[in-house]
Amino acid sequence: MNLKIIIRVLGFLIFVEGVAMLLALAVSLIYGEYDSTAFLISSGICLVTGGIIAWLTNGANKDIGKREGFIIVALVWVVFSFFGSLPYIISGSIPNFTNAFFETISGFTTTGSSILSDIEALPHGVLFWRSISQWLGGMGIIVLSLAILPVFGIGGMQLYVAEVPGPTPDKISPRIRQTAKTLWIIYLGFTATETLLLWIGGMSFYDAVCHSFTTMATGGFSTKQASIAFWSSPFIQYVIIIFMFLAGTNFTLSYLALKGKFKSVFKDEEFKYYGIFILGFTALIFGGLLLTSQLGVEQAFRDALFQVVSIITTTGFATTDYLLWTPFLTILIFTLFFFGGSAGSTGGSIKIMRIVLLLKNSYYELRRMIHPHAVIPVRFNKHSVDAKIITNVLAFFMLYFIIFGLSTILFTLIEPDMESAMGAVATSLGNIGPGLGNVGPAENFLHVSPVGKWFLSFLMLLGRLELFTILVLFSPAFWKQ
Amino acid sequence: MNLKIIIRVLGFLIFVEGVAMLLALAVSLIYGEYDSTAFLISSGICLVTGGIIAWLTNGANKDIGKREGFIIVALVWVVFSFFGSLPYIISGSIPNFTNAFFETISGFTTTGSSILSDIEALPHGVLFWRSISQWLGGMGIIVLSLAILPVFGIGGMQLYVAEVPGPTPDKISPRIRQTAKTLWIIYLGFTATETLLLWIGGMSFYDAVCHSFTTMATGGFSTKQASIAFWSSPFIQYVIIIFMFLAGTNFTLSYLALKGKFKSVFKDEEFKYYGIFILGFTALIFGGLLLTSQLGVEQAFRDALFQVVSIITTTGFATTDYLLWTPFLTILIFTLFFFGGSAGSTGGSIKIMRIVLLLKNSYYELRRMIHPHAVIPVRFNKHSVDAKIITNVLAFFMLYFIIFGLSTILFTLIEPDMESAMGAVATSLGNIGPGLGNVGPAENFLHVSPVGKWFLSFLMLLGRLELFTILVLFSPAFWKQ
Repeated sequence: MNLKIIIRVLGFLIFVEGVAMLLALAVSLIYGEYDSTAFLISSGICLVTGGIIAWLTNGANKDIGKREGFIIVALVWVVFSFFGSLPYIISGSIPNFTNAFFETISGFTTTGSSILSDIEALPHGVLFWRSISQWLGGMGIIVLSLAILPVFGIGGMQLYVAEVPGPTPDKISPRIRQTAKTLWIIYLGFTATETLLLWIGGMSFYDAVCHSFTTMATGGFSTKQASIAFWSSPFIQYVIIIFMFLAGTNFTLSYLALKGKFKSVFKDEEFKYYGIFILGFTALIFGGLLLTSQLGVEQAFRDALFQVVSIITTTGFATTDYLLWTPFLTILIFTLFFFGGSAGSTGGSIKIMRIVLLLKNSYYELRRMIHPHAVIPVRFNKHSVDAKIITNVLAFFMLYFIIFGLSTILFTLIEPDMESAMGAVATSLGNIGPGLGNVGPAENFLHVSPVGKWFLSFLMLLGRLELFTILVLFSPAFWKQ
Repeated sequence: MNLKIIIRVLGFLIFVEGVAMLLALAVSLIYGEYDSTAFLISSGICLVTGGIIAWLTNGANKDIGKREGFIIVALVWVVFSFFGSLPYIISGSIPNFTNAFFETISGFTTTGSSILSDIEALPHGVLFWRSISQWLGGMGIIVLSLAILPVFGIGGMQLYVAEVPGPTPDKISPRIRQTAKTLWIIYLGFTATETLLLWIGGMSFYDAVCHSFTTMATGGFSTKQASIAFWSSPFIQYVIIIFMFLAGTNFTLSYLALKGKFKSVFKDEEFKYYGIFILGFTALIFGGLLLTSQLGVEQAFRDALFQVVSIITTTGFATTDYLLWTPFLTILIFTLFFFGGSAGSTGGSIKIMRIVLLLKNSYYELRRMIHPHAVIPVRFNKHSVDAKIITNVLAFFMLYFIIFGLSTILFTLIEPDMESAMGAVATSLGNIGPGLGNVGPAENFLHVSPVGKWFLSFLMLLGRLELFTILVLFSPAFWKQ
């Protein structure tokens, strides 16, 4: 185990976090608010810590093997959340450590569950930092899911990677750097475009930036307690719908689209089903709202589409409270908790590709039963899918439900109301944001007990890192040899 | 498609049902109650229908291929429930057809959900028929799961069958008859023993027979509105616990045990986990009841053990209302809704063997991730499990949850309360009996709308026939050629 390089990488990332805090410091100085000292101190702590680590680990062997990779990935989010909670604590915005850590890890995992009950009371710098934490988390996830995890054979991108002559499986190759760069440029470009559009639509420039950050990360933190419902402008809401949709799309497809290869995009099966699921659920909920509410046609359509896209992409913005809908419509939304964005997007949860592979495999199983001697592999994007990938996807699905079930059971000890427990667990594991019952879109997580908050924080991490990345650390085989 | 043999087999089974009704007629005559005419007419209808079919289909080609097998299996339970509802309707005990059909299919699928709100008001013959319907259903399931389904490569018994040189895969072999006979003798023997013990314990002979019928079938119909809570005798409750446990055990193991081969029984992995799950859940609930209720130690233990065994085996008897427990304990019981008995038992739901294979596969996946180039097959009972079986089990699990999810969504249109909807769907699909919310152990299904009752009836059938048996009929490939 190359412990030195693990610490070195983490130290480098803490340094990066310190630099990011300087952005929040700048905002704070522009608005001339009291939180600037907090950012100065927090940033200083990060930069100094990062610097000392760099100095101490100088000359470390640069070989990052598989095990080092797993440990770094698992630790990054924890370390980031630890240092990231400093500005909240020092500024006094969220003086309690548990609450501050919950809010920060909810940010970095792009979940968006909040303990804040009066968001507007916080200074601009702090809310900017809150948005940045999600934006950085989203960046991290893109690199992780499109460049790092495939090397370890985890994550929904296996299918794509199998086709491209990719990095060698034993060492993280420098090719990752090139991939990451391209993807970040797209991420940055989308963020800038959304900011511009929201600004044109009537948001303040500050709010536009913050919301673009949290949209592209499918995070869902808002600078307003009422979330996007604060802006009744249909233009703003549609812009956010479009960018949530883009954030939930595989960034490789966006890259292809920007290169003009629209044909490849529309031929992609995951993208196709992503569209079908969104349209299907929107149609059902739109119809349901027309029948059961007093909303006008356009408003009903927009409410349906916004909520569907927000939940399926695991963003978690709200323009209305889906808990006030008729139970059938609420449960449709809850079903989407278990869908998630596309592989290679910033979206969390199970992800469309896995859902599609699982559905296909179940259907193919019926055919296998009729022709037991025929070999009938699942086909995806016109290629046969290796049985190993199917087993992996199925194991993921099974684990996801075991973790969801077990956690819900445990959580009823903390939150003695089954619906709220299910909602809190599902939304944390899926990195969504709002849940059901007393953690619905109009509520927050402040009232959850400290144990409950730490538990949900762990679930956010577990879900964000595709389960296996964390669980493998608990396997004895990992530590052997 | 050999349509003639399908009809002939169904006709034969209707004839058998007519004979079974004669037993209920005898009970009715012994008690000199008004329902004897109903049984005379119903039995007559069955015997004549069966006779006419036998005469019309005389000389049918005796080749029962795979497709014929699937169709027969799917139709048997429906046809049985249709004819089996006659005594309820004709006697006026359940005059409404929907209600009568619901009660009958709940019997034949060994579910045990009831629409009756005053069971004791019904004549002895009718309640005896109600118990017999479950006993026959249990018999049917043993043959189906241990003799017929393996031929088609479905069901949890694949692992056992793969080891024994079994029947040829293309035609149902005469070997089935021998297997079925041995198993039925065990089934009959257990039923007789339980009857004797319950009678000794203080039940009337009539009640003892009825409850033994529904215990061995893991059905759960009782002759009392209060279910087993009617008898406060610990002896009676423990006897029922033991026989529920036996009914949820693979009958092949009981056969081995009766032959003195205890070693093989205790070496069986499914049996081991079945025991572990029961003990684990009982310990948790026992502890929980001690902490949260005023029950004495023995009573708390018995309540915990009874409810756990009743639900894991999918029997559905009750000695207390688990909905009145603290939410954590209730949700533990609800978790057991998704376990089920052993493969090759009369229990329903997902079944222990599948759960174990899935858990193992998920764990092995972590090892596969660490050693991506190694082939690591799942091991069960010291043998490597074929990847095909794993895929099949995983597809089953996935389908089970999709059906559970979709049905719950649809059911909220009928029962606008998520918890009740989840409970009704899970209990029907798992062939358990009681659910959650307004279909809990102290409630019944009378208030569910007719559409809802038909929907739940379909789910009972789907669950009882291991999903695939029914779903394959909806696959175009099945009807091709």
